[in-house]
Amino acid sequence: MPGESRTVHGIHPVLEALRAHPADVERVYVLEGSVPPRAAAEILSRAREAQVRVERVPRERLQALVDGGAHQGVAARLREFAYASLEDVLARAEASGTPPLLVVLDGLQDPHNLGAVIRSADALGAHGVVLPKDRSVGVTAAVARASAGAVEHVPVARVTNLSRALEELKAAGLWVAAADPEGEQLLWDARLDGPLAVVIGAEGAGVRPGVLKHSDLRLRIPMAGRVGSLNASVSAALVLYEVARQRGRGGGRSP
Amino acid sequence: MPGESRTVHGIHPVLEALRAHPADVERVYVLEGSVPPRAAAEILSRAREAQVRVERVPRERLQALVDGGAHQGVAARLREFAYASLEDVLARAEASGTPPLLVVLDGLQDPHNLGAVIRSADALGAHGVVLPKDRSVGVTAAVARASAGAVEHVPVARVTNLSRALEELKAAGLWVAAADPEGEQLLWDARLDGPLAVVIGAEGAGVRPGVLKHSDLRLRIPMAGRVGSLNASVSAALVLYEVARQRGRGGGRSP
Repeated sequence: MPGESRTVHGIHPVLEALRAHPADVERVYVLEGSVPPRAAAEILSRAREAQVRVERVPRERLQALVDGGAHQGVAARLREFAYASLEDVLARAEASGTPPLLVVLDGLQDPHNLGAVIRSADALGAHGVVLPKDRSVGVTAAVARASAGAVEHVPVARVTNLSRALEELKAAGLWVAAADPEGEQLLWDARLDGPLAVVIGAEGAGVRPGVLKHSDLRLRIPMAGRVGSLNASVSAALVLYEVARQRGRGGGRSP
Repeated sequence: MPGESRTVHGIHPVLEALRAHPADVERVYVLEGSVPPRAAAEILSRAREAQVRVERVPRERLQALVDGGAHQGVAARLREFAYASLEDVLARAEASGTPPLLVVLDGLQDPHNLGAVIRSADALGAHGVVLPKDRSVGVTAAVARASAGAVEHVPVARVTNLSRALEELKAAGLWVAAADPEGEQLLWDARLDGPLAVVIGAEGAGVRPGVLKHSDLRLRIPMAGRVGSLNASVSAALVLYEVARQRGRGGGRSP
C-alpha cells in the first residue's frame, strides 16, 4: 500500500516516537476538551519543536484512529514503519562493539508477543529482530504499543526467506541457536557468548523443521510444569537473558 | 457476586479445564454447523465422560459468551475461579520437596500479563501466585486463555493486605526478593536457591514503596537498551528462570 502510515497511541509510545524520530511523525492527535495529563505537556512541546501539527479530536474519532486501543488521550500518525534490511541490522551489530546478537522470529502471529519481543530485545541488548514477510505479524500500532516504544530503537528486518537469511547470518560468522523443547542442550549449559542469532518459533507450532535444520544449536528451556510450554515472548527473553548473563553482565550500562 | 461463573475459550484452555478439573466445568459450547477441528474431538469425548452438557450455539452467541476473544469454535463455562488461601499455597510448596517458590504480584492490571505470569510460574517451577484483592486484575477468562490453561494447575491466592502476606511468608521462612530497577543486586549475582517469594510490580509503577520495604532483597535486571524496562510478565519469568538455574537445573522434570 503506497502512502500507508501507522498509528501509535498512548503517552509513552507517542513520546518515544517524538523523541527518537520526530521527522517520522506526521500528526499528533489529542482528545479535545480534556486537559491532557502531565506527561502530555512534553508531547505538545516536542510536537511544536518538530513542527508537527497537533489536532484536537473528539473521543469517537480518536477511538476510531487507534482501533479501540487504550489511547490515554493521545495518538500520533507516523510514516509507515521503516523496516531495516538484514545488512543494516548486521552492520549495526558489528558497529556495536559487542558480539552480534539478533532475534529471528519464525512466524509469530500475536502483536502483543512481537511487541514484547522487541521490548526485551532492546532491554537485554539485542541488535535487531528478523521476521519473515509471510505468515508473520508485521509492525503495527498494536505492536508499537506493546513494545513500549522500543520499535523506535530496535531495527526490525523483514526477509523473504528465513532459511536463506539464517545462512547469510552464518556466513557473517553468527551461530544460529533455536529454542526447541526437544533440544539437546539445556539453555544454561550452552555457550552463548559469541556472535549469535536466536531463533524463536511461533506460539504452538515452535520453530518449523525446515528452519530448525539451519540451526547450529537447539536450546531447551527446562520445564517443570504441567502445561509444558512458555509464551513465545517469554522464551525469547529467557534466551536473551542467558546470553547477557554469560556475556558478563549486562551488555550495556550495567557493571 | 454469588453464582458467578467464568468462561474459558479456545481449544487448549477448554481441554485443560476438562482434563484437570472436569467437575468444575458447567457447560461446553461448540459453534453450530461447523465441524470442529481435530483437537475438538477430545473435548467432546471428555465432556461426555464427565457428563458435561455440550451446547451448539450460533457464532453471535459464542462471540458474546467469550466477549470478543478468539474462541476457535469452543468455549466452556466453569464454576467461579477457586482462589487458594495463602496457607494452601504454602502447604503445597512445602509438600513439593523443593524449596518454596512463590510469585507475588503488586497490582498487575493487564490480563495478558497475569496469564503469562501464571503460565511461566507453572513452566518454571513456582508453587503459586499471590495477588492483592484490590487494584489488581483477577483470574478472568482472558487470564485463563493467556495462561494456556496453567490456571488449572497453579494455585492463585488473593490477599487483603500484601504487606501482611509478605510478613506471613517471611515468618514461614521465605526470603522476599523484589524486582526493582533501583535494586542493589544484579539478578544473576543474588543467591536465590532457598525458599523464596518473588515480588513483581505493576507495569510502569513497579513495586510500591510500602511493599518494597518488606523485601529482604532488591533484584535488578540489567538493562542495556533505550526504553529501559521490561514487560512485567517477562521480569517475572527472568527471576523464575534464574532461580531454576541456581537450584540446579530444572526444578522438575529435567536432569
